[in-house]
Amino acid sequence: MKSAVVTLFFVLLMSGSVFAADTPVAPNGIALFKNYRSWQLIAPSYREDKQHIRVILGNPAAVRAMKNKTRPMPDGAVLAKIAWTVKKHPQFPVATEPAEFAQVEFMVKDSVKYKATGGWGFARFVGPGLKPYGKNADFVQECFGCHTPVKGNDYLFTDYAAVP
Amino acid sequence: MKSAVVTLFFVLLMSGSVFAADTPVAPNGIALFKNYRSWQLIAPSYREDKQHIRVILGNPAAVRAMKNKTRPMPDGAVLAKIAWTVKKHPQFPVATEPAEFAQVEFMVKDSVKYKATGGWGFARFVGPGLKPYGKNADFVQECFGCHTPVKGNDYLFTDYAAVP
Repeated sequence: MKSAVVTLFFVLLMSGSVFAADTPVAPNGIALFKNYRSWQLIAPSYREDKQHIRVILGNPAAVRAMKNKTRPMPDGAVLAKIAWTVKKHPQFPVATEPAEFAQVEFMVKDSVKYKATGGWGFARFVGPGLKPYGKNADFVQECFGCHTPVKGNDYLFTDYAAVP
Repeated sequence: MKSAVVTLFFVLLMSGSVFAADTPVAPNGIALFKNYRSWQLIAPSYREDKQHIRVILGNPAAVRAMKNKTRPMPDGAVLAKIAWTVKKHPQFPVATEPAEFAQVEFMVKDSVKYKATGGWGFARFVGPGLKPYGKNADFVQECFGCHTPVKGNDYLFTDYAAVP
């Protein structure tokens, strides 16, 4: 009995460390996507108000849909928007570059599961600790509200940054 | 004899169109890299003076070296810097986004072939027509001169934009 309790303790300890430290989860159940940093580029942007430089990356389904201008995006498409604070390059101050990681945000397409918010599930992970944003699942109303003006583009502000 | 001349004519015509229209070549012999747009992201930047938003992408050898902070970069590493002109998003003007493709620049590491310029071969292709930059191979002196202040970082201004 004692050894069973000890075993249970270690199982809980280990599973706890896996979910808490390795994979943060937003209050609506969306977990940080593994390996998103290696996804292909959709487009960069610069946020004057926040003093952020940002990129949107996409998983293969999202990149394909972006290149083909498919709207609405297909189920399974995931976009990751990474924001860094900015600094002027010390040896080339006309260039503004990433300083520190600020946050990463995800938009996950599932037209059934996220029907109430345009088919998109939202998540944000903040700072070096990737702290999930939002006290409860209602935080998505803030995300969805801000994206509503671009409903006609499947709630997306940004298109694919093309090259010839 | 006549048919041989006609054949030769068509061979030249076709090879000409392949090299001129499909693959522009810089005056130093560096051709535009195919498929560079799908390479992984190194970092974004914003150039206030040029009003450009830019990203540096890297081939697999370059991304690996960037993540590991390997300097000098290994032979075979290639960096592609894409610049777009900027526009303020019409429905969200605090966000500055890509407008039109401006140019793409490459840095190609070959410590033997490009020994005179720090082991880097340079190339730039400008505008929607991807016009090779430079009247002759001496154009690289302009590129190399600008990168000389960052000789201590293997002539690279930009490091990998990391995430936690």
